[in-house]
Amino acid sequence: MEFFFRPKGIAVIGATPSRQKGGNIIVSNLKTGYSGQVYPVNPRYKEIEGVTCYPSVSDVPDPVDLAIVFVAARMVPQVIEACAQRHIPGVMIQSAGFAETGTTGEALQQETRQIAEKTGIRLWGPNCMGLVDTHQRFVFSTVTPAIWDTGLPSGNVSLIAQSGMLAGAFLIDLMSHGTMGIAKVCSIGNKMDVDENDLLGYLIHDPDTAAIGLYLESLTDCRRFMALCRSTTKPVVILNGGKTAGGAAAARSHTASLSAGGALVTGAMAQAGIVTADGFYQLVDFCRTLGMYPSLPDRSGNRVAVLTYTGAAGIVSADLMHRHGLALSTFSDATLETLQTVFPEWMPPSNPVDMWPGIILNGSKKTYDTAMMSVCADPSVDAVFVHCFAGGFSLDVDLERMAKTAREAGKPLFCWISGERDRTYDFQKSAQQLGVPVFREVMRAVECMGMLLNRSSRAIETDPETEADEQIRRLKQDPRLGMLTSKKGFLDEGVSKQVLEACGIPVVEETCVTSVKEARLVAAGFGFPLVAKGMVPGVSHKTESNLVYLGIASEQDLEAAVTTLQQTMAGRGRILIQKQVSGNRELMAGFVRDPRLGPCVMCGLGGVFAEALNDTVFGVAPLTLTDALNMIDRLKCRPMLDGFRGMGPVDRDVLAGILKTLGHLGCAYPDIREIDINPLIIHQGRPVAVDALVVLEGENR
Amino acid sequence: MEFFFRPKGIAVIGATPSRQKGGNIIVSNLKTGYSGQVYPVNPRYKEIEGVTCYPSVSDVPDPVDLAIVFVAARMVPQVIEACAQRHIPGVMIQSAGFAETGTTGEALQQETRQIAEKTGIRLWGPNCMGLVDTHQRFVFSTVTPAIWDTGLPSGNVSLIAQSGMLAGAFLIDLMSHGTMGIAKVCSIGNKMDVDENDLLGYLIHDPDTAAIGLYLESLTDCRRFMALCRSTTKPVVILNGGKTAGGAAAARSHTASLSAGGALVTGAMAQAGIVTADGFYQLVDFCRTLGMYPSLPDRSGNRVAVLTYTGAAGIVSADLMHRHGLALSTFSDATLETLQTVFPEWMPPSNPVDMWPGIILNGSKKTYDTAMMSVCADPSVDAVFVHCFAGGFSLDVDLERMAKTAREAGKPLFCWISGERDRTYDFQKSAQQLGVPVFREVMRAVECMGMLLNRSSRAIETDPETEADEQIRRLKQDPRLGMLTSKKGFLDEGVSKQVLEACGIPVVEETCVTSVKEARLVAAGFGFPLVAKGMVPGVSHKTESNLVYLGIASEQDLEAAVTTLQQTMAGRGRILIQKQVSGNRELMAGFVRDPRLGPCVMCGLGGVFAEALNDTVFGVAPLTLTDALNMIDRLKCRPMLDGFRGMGPVDRDVLAGILKTLGHLGCAYPDIREIDINPLIIHQGRPVAVDALVVLEGENR
Repeated sequence: MEFFFRPKGIAVIGATPSRQKGGNIIVSNLKTGYSGQVYPVNPRYKEIEGVTCYPSVSDVPDPVDLAIVFVAARMVPQVIEACAQRHIPGVMIQSAGFAETGTTGEALQQETRQIAEKTGIRLWGPNCMGLVDTHQRFVFSTVTPAIWDTGLPSGNVSLIAQSGMLAGAFLIDLMSHGTMGIAKVCSIGNKMDVDENDLLGYLIHDPDTAAIGLYLESLTDCRRFMALCRSTTKPVVILNGGKTAGGAAAARSHTASLSAGGALVTGAMAQAGIVTADGFYQLVDFCRTLGMYPSLPDRSGNRVAVLTYTGAAGIVSADLMHRHGLALSTFSDATLETLQTVFPEWMPPSNPVDMWPGIILNGSKKTYDTAMMSVCADPSVDAVFVHCFAGGFSLDVDLERMAKTAREAGKPLFCWISGERDRTYDFQKSAQQLGVPVFREVMRAVECMGMLLNRSSRAIETDPETEADEQIRRLKQDPRLGMLTSKKGFLDEGVSKQVLEACGIPVVEETCVTSVKEARLVAAGFGFPLVAKGMVPGVSHKTESNLVYLGIASEQDLEAAVTTLQQTMAGRGRILIQKQVSGNRELMAGFVRDPRLGPCVMCGLGGVFAEALNDTVFGVAPLTLTDALNMIDRLKCRPMLDGFRGMGPVDRDVLAGILKTLGHLGCAYPDIREIDINPLIIHQGRPVAVDALVVLEGENR
Repeated sequence: MEFFFRPKGIAVIGATPSRQKGGNIIVSNLKTGYSGQVYPVNPRYKEIEGVTCYPSVSDVPDPVDLAIVFVAARMVPQVIEACAQRHIPGVMIQSAGFAETGTTGEALQQETRQIAEKTGIRLWGPNCMGLVDTHQRFVFSTVTPAIWDTGLPSGNVSLIAQSGMLAGAFLIDLMSHGTMGIAKVCSIGNKMDVDENDLLGYLIHDPDTAAIGLYLESLTDCRRFMALCRSTTKPVVILNGGKTAGGAAAARSHTASLSAGGALVTGAMAQAGIVTADGFYQLVDFCRTLGMYPSLPDRSGNRVAVLTYTGAAGIVSADLMHRHGLALSTFSDATLETLQTVFPEWMPPSNPVDMWPGIILNGSKKTYDTAMMSVCADPSVDAVFVHCFAGGFSLDVDLERMAKTAREAGKPLFCWISGERDRTYDFQKSAQQLGVPVFREVMRAVECMGMLLNRSSRAIETDPETEADEQIRRLKQDPRLGMLTSKKGFLDEGVSKQVLEACGIPVVEETCVTSVKEARLVAAGFGFPLVAKGMVPGVSHKTESNLVYLGIASEQDLEAAVTTLQQTMAGRGRILIQKQVSGNRELMAGFVRDPRLGPCVMCGLGGVFAEALNDTVFGVAPLTLTDALNMIDRLKCRPMLDGFRGMGPVDRDVLAGILKTLGHLGCAYPDIREIDINPLIIHQGRPVAVDALVVLEGENR
């Protein structure tokens, strides 16, 4: 990808002397920042913006690594052919008029992609804003030259955007506000060839980039994306547009790409340690935070020291912190003693620290400095949150000194700034220089702090597929699982549970019977209470079809149930006698093969609450044990799994094992379309599959 | 309160010529903005800031309505005595050093308050920043005179703050940013006499105030606060600091006041139609929105037209809207036809509207105008959300015209602005002038839109107490409820349910028995399955004490259960035989008498999920039917109450009736401390109390 990021010579195809047109702006922007040779190409001109213009790309002298194309869409295929013949390795197509405009454009895009496949030339775009690199001062884009007025403030956050908006307008917004630094911005447009994964792969190894943010409306290859993110400690943040039904409809009409969906993708992102954002500024604020603190000390926790110049700010911060999974540090005696030296006697300091009484006695600099020194030395403090005021009052602080104290202690410092407009702006800019994330609003500050301190995946993980290979191989060879290749469509409840049992998933004790006599024999073995179910081919909602008898407590009841079932079923299907499992916590687990993400595993609250409370989480198979445990931790009903009200805790390893196995099973047998275990009843602390359904490819009716 | 807000003559007690001191700043600020007479009081000076100074308040000539006091705390009582003798009706005590500093200060505050009680003089403060009124340009405060540099931008939002921070530093922040207008800011400090309710009562009738925001760490009288809010259509927003455990601890140490607590107060606020905020900027952004749109058309809904200059902005907006309870309008054919006139043929317009292709064809002004005209005329549109860009591009819009179009259609317009720093700032200021709420971030914009369009209580409600009186009176006179005055402490389950039944709350069929023989007789009437429970005085956790037998299906089982219970209970307590209620949706309901809020009602998810999912809502008794239905609507498990998976919907009127009755019962019998109904099982769509506990004042052991 170096020819895109550090090209030796650039041809601009479709260059024009008409100011305000894209073909002129590209040349202008190159002239302003790019130090290599620029070759405008247009048969109608000899010179553009004082630079020699060439009639065609074949006339352009060496070296030329990159062509930037801004011609009418219908001209693009022949231009790309010419570039390929000229052996130019990379082309950025900034013209619009492709798949985003309908079927004609879609065909044109298809034709262009085929040239790339045939010739090996790499195509970036079309319908994109190209690349901005603040370190090299490269602007390979039709973005308005007003961008140079911002000074192109550089930093260590790089962005990849499937939208001209983020790469163009929003970038100017960000840069002109100057309160965060950007390294590179890559606008990928319709991503007909070069996609987010190609660029992510490059940025992971880019020394100018410490954190990567993406705005995407579709994920080209989610598994590769996850693997890339898991291969690095460099933090990745994603804003995934089109998550809701409404949003997804908009995504289709806008980018001609399917939405990457909701819960599945959210689960996949969490599994790969990717941070998710919900808005543009939140995306870049998360990135800014992570760019400043790309890694934290090993055993860093979520305990924060809060220093504010008013009590109210501390109280509101504490409320918000609680909501974002952060705790208030309980200061050591040494810290409390040191703090007391700057506070009046009547005010014993505690966390949050209301600095005001100290400021009145000792001035703001001394009070803030003393507090910073003491909390940074306190082992109960993982991070420091400081509220400052700029202008008007005697509330000056020495931010540089505070930043140094925090940095030396290895504790991230967060700053919330209030004050007069110009002074707060100066404060923001100097904090940016000092590498301290500063925020105008307490809510965003606490959001970023919560994101950083609770970020789950910080280490490079081993490849989960290697770990899983062995179990998948065993499952493939298990003779008890023959039905997964020989049968089609829905397996009945009994057979579905035989599959699960063969994989080692705990299932309820049950047997098929054909008569009341057989049922009595089974009852003699199992004991009461029992459940009788009628399995009729094609009937999946047994309860609604009067095919379930719960709480059978006696021989008479059993006889009645079996007899009635036989009448209801009229000779079709089989009768299942189950031991009734007691337990009032019900979960569900499942497997689904997603068209984009492949084999995926689900876990959620089961029973009647499943739909009403919609508490489900997804993971991408194969799962490691850690993946599965993390999935369980993402459930809202997580506290229910701990022991309470006389109930013991749920064995999470067993539950995680079930999820892992479901995923491995789906990987081993590509014919499995879907598995549902609902309910998965917690009996004496262990999950037991009470009802199950396996769906294979094809039809069985 | 007019003497605080429009005083004829102000004495400043503790005035001083030393610049930077509070006693000087107050005089300065008065001189700059106040047009009445100012009388500095200090025996040591003849003149302060060019104004004649008086040795004592008794020497001050008429008229003098207000004294602002800034002397050492220990001097305050004698100063207040002097003010009372001088017949000054109101005093603002801006000095600190009272209850917030510990027991000595608390005693001083007590002494001062007693003078007010004795003389009828009204005291505002102490430990406060006083009052700022931008319309009259009154600054009765020690706030830095730098506040005048902001130009004191005026507007129709008034704030009441139990924190100097919000009234001082944050006010300067707000005003110097100039992107919202303020009418009055009242800093109430320790509120020893004048409290939020006094000020709220004044602001409700203040013609300069259209919306009221409060930052409070404690509610002096929550019921009066609720009644005031229910008495007006003027919107009220509250940021209630100290909601979490951590926050509450901070509140105690900061203001010497107890935190107003979490779920109870949240419920009370929702019941009174008060909007709640979580951060300072969110508080004022909510107020700004409500100040611009204090009321909406009667049948206004939550359907929004979204116009953005890029597809990505529309997609992200739609995702966020979904989360904040907003829907995308489905445009009428007329709207789609009009939109199509400015869009290229290949792009059939839909909501969200990606304006870019239209802008390229027709320019931004025409495209935005056409879109605004058509969506404002569309009956499917309740509000319009527009994303604009300021600077750099050719994306100028005529905001004034758009504002006029929306205003004439009676549809609230919201604007999200991105762009170059100075240009976006200009845009924000002109939007403020035009009365259009504008936001820099999509997330906040959607939050505010969601708050406005989903705001529940828009109309003045009838006094709920009048409506409830009749039922409360009947309950008081009901002879079946004699035990509520004659007994003490815990009532056993059987008696507790007799109480509920007498009130008309559906309870499970049950009878007390003393022998196996009696139990058999009961079974003959009820039929199986049954439940047997042992009620032993002092034992509230029956299950854990082996006092509950569920699913008794036969005479033998019944005999075994009763016999075992008799052994376990060893002659103490009574045995209850219940019909076993089937139903797999379990709720709970309850009553609690809160020290601050008085009688309150609770409803929540019951059974094993109660604690794990913590889905409970509170209301303040007596409840109207609407209050009770609104409580039910605030439950997260709300969808569970609708029919699903073969289960019918829950009869909400019956459930609401139970909540209402619990509240009325608590109002009728002040000895009731607590009532718990758990579970309240949904049986054939109707809630039935299966277990219950009534706790009265006093001990019964």
